[in-house]
Amino acid sequence: MPSFAALALLTSTIAASPPPDPPQTATATPTSAIAEAPPADWKRIRAEDLLVLDLARGGRVVIQLSDAFAPVHVANIRALARAHWYDGLVIERVQDNYVVQWGDPDSAKPLPAGVIRVSPAEYDRPAAGLALTVLPYRDTYAERVGVVDGLPAAEADGRAWPVHCYGMVGVGRDLSPDTGSGAELYAVIGHSPRALDRNIALAGRVLAGMDLLAALPRGQGKLGFYTDPAQRLRIDRVRLASDLPAAERPAYERLREDSAGYRAWVQVKANRQDDFFVHPAGALDICNAVPPVRSAPR
Amino acid sequence: MPSFAALALLTSTIAASPPPDPPQTATATPTSAIAEAPPADWKRIRAEDLLVLDLARGGRVVIQLSDAFAPVHVANIRALARAHWYDGLVIERVQDNYVVQWGDPDSAKPLPAGVIRVSPAEYDRPAAGLALTVLPYRDTYAERVGVVDGLPAAEADGRAWPVHCYGMVGVGRDLSPDTGSGAELYAVIGHSPRALDRNIALAGRVLAGMDLLAALPRGQGKLGFYTDPAQRLRIDRVRLASDLPAAERPAYERLREDSAGYRAWVQVKANRQDDFFVHPAGALDICNAVPPVRSAPR
Repeated sequence: MPSFAALALLTSTIAASPPPDPPQTATATPTSAIAEAPPADWKRIRAEDLLVLDLARGGRVVIQLSDAFAPVHVANIRALARAHWYDGLVIERVQDNYVVQWGDPDSAKPLPAGVIRVSPAEYDRPAAGLALTVLPYRDTYAERVGVVDGLPAAEADGRAWPVHCYGMVGVGRDLSPDTGSGAELYAVIGHSPRALDRNIALAGRVLAGMDLLAALPRGQGKLGFYTDPAQRLRIDRVRLASDLPAAERPAYERLREDSAGYRAWVQVKANRQDDFFVHPAGALDICNAVPPVRSAPR
Repeated sequence: MPSFAALALLTSTIAASPPPDPPQTATATPTSAIAEAPPADWKRIRAEDLLVLDLARGGRVVIQLSDAFAPVHVANIRALARAHWYDGLVIERVQDNYVVQWGDPDSAKPLPAGVIRVSPAEYDRPAAGLALTVLPYRDTYAERVGVVDGLPAAEADGRAWPVHCYGMVGVGRDLSPDTGSGAELYAVIGHSPRALDRNIALAGRVLAGMDLLAALPRGQGKLGFYTDPAQRLRIDRVRLASDLPAAERPAYERLREDSAGYRAWVQVKANRQDDFFVHPAGALDICNAVPPVRSAPR
């Protein structure tokens, strides 16, 4: 369950005495709210929507792809994975409090057939027709924020777009008219860089393995690119989960944003009453409200 | 200059052709806004306010301490540093998208004389008498947000408090009535956990070395504590810069929050016009508006 974290900041007890027992309380916590959500509140993520990156040294990153905002870019990513085009590429850039980026640093590998070189600028879209579950809290950038297809999203002036929260995956691009082919992807590893919203296509969200991506050594070159090719981490294999042998296929489910369980979890996170807290915040940022994910039975 | 980052997401050019020349433009960028700020817009941070952590393997972390919100806690931290009490302690916890924490995992080391065991709950304070430079953008949690003494801060209902942005340093504590002695400290390494605001004393902000802290391997134990003591990173020495030999003393200055240069930088960050951007955000989150810092002459 990499996408949410207990909020208590426990410390060691500073004294010769043994640490106190953990508090026994029936007060709801984010963890208990998740545990109490019934099975119907969980939605299994389709294997066709899971992009699985197997890294050198044995690490695995799993990304949920979503067609909600950038379907042409996501179709490119699926085509690149099915052509095994990503295999052997590298993580080439790690910029602190910003992004980790992977791709082909030498731009030497021709794109396979079926990949659209210049996709539409799928940076936002009409809000009409989109199922946005709205959070009841104000936002710095948008009229409303909430969740679409498991992704953090925002809406203003009749347009809607995904939000650059921690773990969101975007499509690197050059200057306009380039919109990115999908050959270069990045994930956010710091405080949400919301200035990028509506300026780059977002393709999905990391469900597992953020702890690996975010802990990579920072690059010392411009924009966090590694200066020594030996620093790059190789990506051995990238597949859609549906194309993996059954025994290697990961499975995840997320708390549905339209469920009572999700609403209860948000409410608890925004109004912490458990023993550690003395001043409940009364609100919750969209990037702290990204739906929880957990492993599902295969 | 670790505390701000160029916002352009450059990618490799996907083609056999050479990459294009960098754009030649006179449009203001966050980097150019900083470069154009005159010397008078910069404020040197006092050596007495710099806490210097020298880590095993040669890394260095520098923290600005601020008395603005939690003076008793900060006095404790100064006393602990002056007693060399922190020397030999360890980084014991790294929880992804949350915090890195250091201290005495065995709670075996007695506190030195002069450290107040139970400080006041300095989690917020009266807004009156505090010089808050206000950002012109709304916030999810507070009536107003801005900067106090170089730290991101918020205000509501006549109270003011520092904000848990990336790089902020807080005082770990147990359940109330404990408020934390300063023996356990943490730094934020993910999206701002604002639910912690007004619940823990914040002592300052990391000015340099976040790239080291945030890249540490995540702990696999509960709350991100390392399960194997061998995973802990030793902190060889912690001193106030003013107590270091001159040759070892770091020096930093920050763009003053009450300067025209800071206002220009915020304006540019909120309204990107340079070539990469097609849709300026029109706003800026407080955690993306933490004043830039740079090395200063010794």
